[in-house]
Amino acid sequence: MSEVKLDDIVSLAKRRGFVYQGSEIYGGLAGTYDYGPLGTLLKRNIVNEWLKFFVDGWDDMYQIDSAILMNPKVWQASGHVNTFTDPLVECSNCHARLRADHILEDAINFDEKQLKEAKCSNCGKTGTLDKPRQFNLMFKTTVGPVEDENNLTYLRPETAQGMFTNFKNIVDTYSPDLPFGIAQVGRAFRNEISPRDFLFRTREFEIMEFEFFLHESEWETKFEKWRKDMHSWFKHLGLPEDKIKEIEVSEDDRAHYSKRTVDFEYNFPSLGFAEVGGLAYRTDFDLKNHQEASGKSMEYRPKDGSAPFIPHVIEPTFGVDRNFLAVLSQAYTEDEVEGEKRTYLKLPSHLAPIKIAVFPLLKNKPELVAKAKEVHKLLRKQVNGEVMFDDNGNIGKRYRRQDEIGTPHTITIDFQTLEDDTVTIRNRDTTQQTRQKISELSF
Amino acid sequence: MSEVKLDDIVSLAKRRGFVYQGSEIYGGLAGTYDYGPLGTLLKRNIVNEWLKFFVDGWDDMYQIDSAILMNPKVWQASGHVNTFTDPLVECSNCHARLRADHILEDAINFDEKQLKEAKCSNCGKTGTLDKPRQFNLMFKTTVGPVEDENNLTYLRPETAQGMFTNFKNIVDTYSPDLPFGIAQVGRAFRNEISPRDFLFRTREFEIMEFEFFLHESEWETKFEKWRKDMHSWFKHLGLPEDKIKEIEVSEDDRAHYSKRTVDFEYNFPSLGFAEVGGLAYRTDFDLKNHQEASGKSMEYRPKDGSAPFIPHVIEPTFGVDRNFLAVLSQAYTEDEVEGEKRTYLKLPSHLAPIKIAVFPLLKNKPELVAKAKEVHKLLRKQVNGEVMFDDNGNIGKRYRRQDEIGTPHTITIDFQTLEDDTVTIRNRDTTQQTRQKISELSF
Repeated sequence: MSEVKLDDIVSLAKRRGFVYQGSEIYGGLAGTYDYGPLGTLLKRNIVNEWLKFFVDGWDDMYQIDSAILMNPKVWQASGHVNTFTDPLVECSNCHARLRADHILEDAINFDEKQLKEAKCSNCGKTGTLDKPRQFNLMFKTTVGPVEDENNLTYLRPETAQGMFTNFKNIVDTYSPDLPFGIAQVGRAFRNEISPRDFLFRTREFEIMEFEFFLHESEWETKFEKWRKDMHSWFKHLGLPEDKIKEIEVSEDDRAHYSKRTVDFEYNFPSLGFAEVGGLAYRTDFDLKNHQEASGKSMEYRPKDGSAPFIPHVIEPTFGVDRNFLAVLSQAYTEDEVEGEKRTYLKLPSHLAPIKIAVFPLLKNKPELVAKAKEVHKLLRKQVNGEVMFDDNGNIGKRYRRQDEIGTPHTITIDFQTLEDDTVTIRNRDTTQQTRQKISELSF
Repeated sequence: MSEVKLDDIVSLAKRRGFVYQGSEIYGGLAGTYDYGPLGTLLKRNIVNEWLKFFVDGWDDMYQIDSAILMNPKVWQASGHVNTFTDPLVECSNCHARLRADHILEDAINFDEKQLKEAKCSNCGKTGTLDKPRQFNLMFKTTVGPVEDENNLTYLRPETAQGMFTNFKNIVDTYSPDLPFGIAQVGRAFRNEISPRDFLFRTREFEIMEFEFFLHESEWETKFEKWRKDMHSWFKHLGLPEDKIKEIEVSEDDRAHYSKRTVDFEYNFPSLGFAEVGGLAYRTDFDLKNHQEASGKSMEYRPKDGSAPFIPHVIEPTFGVDRNFLAVLSQAYTEDEVEGEKRTYLKLPSHLAPIKIAVFPLLKNKPELVAKAKEVHKLLRKQVNGEVMFDDNGNIGKRYRRQDEIGTPHTITIDFQTLEDDTVTIRNRDTTQQTRQKISELSF
């Protein structure tokens, strides 16, 4: 089989209703995507599995859901107003703004000669590019009826600040023992200069992450613990060991708040290894800054009466859309069945959007259709997840369609069913069929 | 007992970690709220129940998850750029902007004399208010590195347009039979001039709704069907018949796209009857406008070969936060137990954030704590939902705490448990306790 390309994934995602371009009928809006019905189910499964894995049922985890719009002082204190920037250059001829790091080897200590010789990728002129300047990646908006600087705020570029600004609330309400975590799944926005690579670099995306608060002395032990758990998570998504790589991020490349960061990269088709999650030791940077800026104490008072202190933080973070794209990429498989090329999604059962599809062998035989509907109804009650009924097109087409959306099992009701109450169960990966009594079906 | 006030709900919501003010440590950001751990669980339960009720397992329902940022042409075509406005007046002295309908009886055909005599509620001067003008309620932002009119877009003020712009995608991908629905749960934003009444009128909120596409001839039948189902939904939330009122919205008060609207109102503490959901017949307004503006056909081709047409739309819509507030308000109960005032949340079991709490009678008896942890672990596996362990404070305090967060059952491990493997189960509403064998516990 030929090498799988990112375009193959994009194409299947659209064809089968996993992901569409955002605002597609108007030619799109760069860096936005809409999840279609199957994509919504797959994404929901990933998020729910994540909650089960890291949050639900853990005594030391508190999930919150904070607002996307926050007081601008949050972003001043967090450092985002000053440092959450990318360098860009503007063309003095056509006024296009381009990413400086796409033009210059070093956008900070840039080479004047290199800039002079650089060509504007928009108008094609040479020598028209101005010196790089910093562009803030936060989307701005104004709150309330007066549009001025005083009412300016930002769409959150990360969900983490919602956890930091609620740290005191959680401590006051629940008196948790340290260490404990505050988790959140939610939308975030970054005004990327050049969004690209499908779901990989978008302007609107979803994050699932938690801030784990602890005493400074514990950070190395807990960093190690979460590092291992992150590996287990990617395994749980069906991503094999050899396609997940850890990158120790150097000081120069780390975010402004981090003292140690390990990126987790997955080997995507076309893109190669690229980030799907990260583990950062944020120290007490955020809580300390919020304490200074807000005047509210962010200290934790140990229950044993020892001295209060500002907790340090370990942050395991996961891009929902990137995890989704990794799952889809990993599942995408091509093989040959009965001499014909077949594309199918080898999704793990717990992630598959449709768990089982039920078919009547023929659409125009009312007794087969009635029986198939009966089995469909029965399995809906029995199975934890979506069970689909499909009588559209011939049986071969229906198998191919279910293969392409990753349905692990398809059940066909045929004439023998009417005689002995058995059905055929087809396995997606092997395409093998077995017969089984309806009363003995269990998934 | 005294009459329950909205402030009682706000206070319990904060005290127990259901809802905090957004950006609280910085004095808040008007019209935004953060859901705390128990609020997040309760909200999740409401949304999941809604999906089970209206979407999951229905063959004619397609759930999507579209981007919050959309191409601005969407909002031109939908009419929001021109008509999604509230009238406001500006004070020429202090430049405060105020809602015209708070000052004038009729903000459109206003009485000049009334305006002249009106007092600015900000600076207190009289006669300084300018004529009312229209203020658009959409939040603006610019996309990409150039901040100009061409790159202006809006935070979506409703989720519905995501369904309309994906109508063609869904039809092309799944060839659904008409009628069918496209559903979505997601965040929306309205730059309210005066947000107020806690979760009731906020600037950032969540909507769960679907657009039900049909042939025009069917609209009255389906309108009726969904009207009934909406009643069943509110019943499913535990809101009694007599506290839900239907309001037939007059033509003057209907949104620009609607030919018939029925609002569903719940009788909130302090606020009285106020909207928690709505049912609108949007005609073919949206699809027709998108067809004209985008040049893409929004016609549906019936499978029987009859003439293609643009479907009409019925829209049942629910404010997640308002449904949440109604559930919380309805559950809020005060009674007297053993001569003391008690506050508890009489939440339906399927909505309660914590299903069961497990206590050791005494915290300082290791054998009780160990046994309680064993039972806690056992029930976690057995129960669909959160099971909490609590050994904080005396048993009376723990009961009160669980009552206040609406936990239907609390289980206490005492000395008798160590002898005969029985526990006490306490019912939240009656406070009655019964003894039962651990092996016979079932929830």
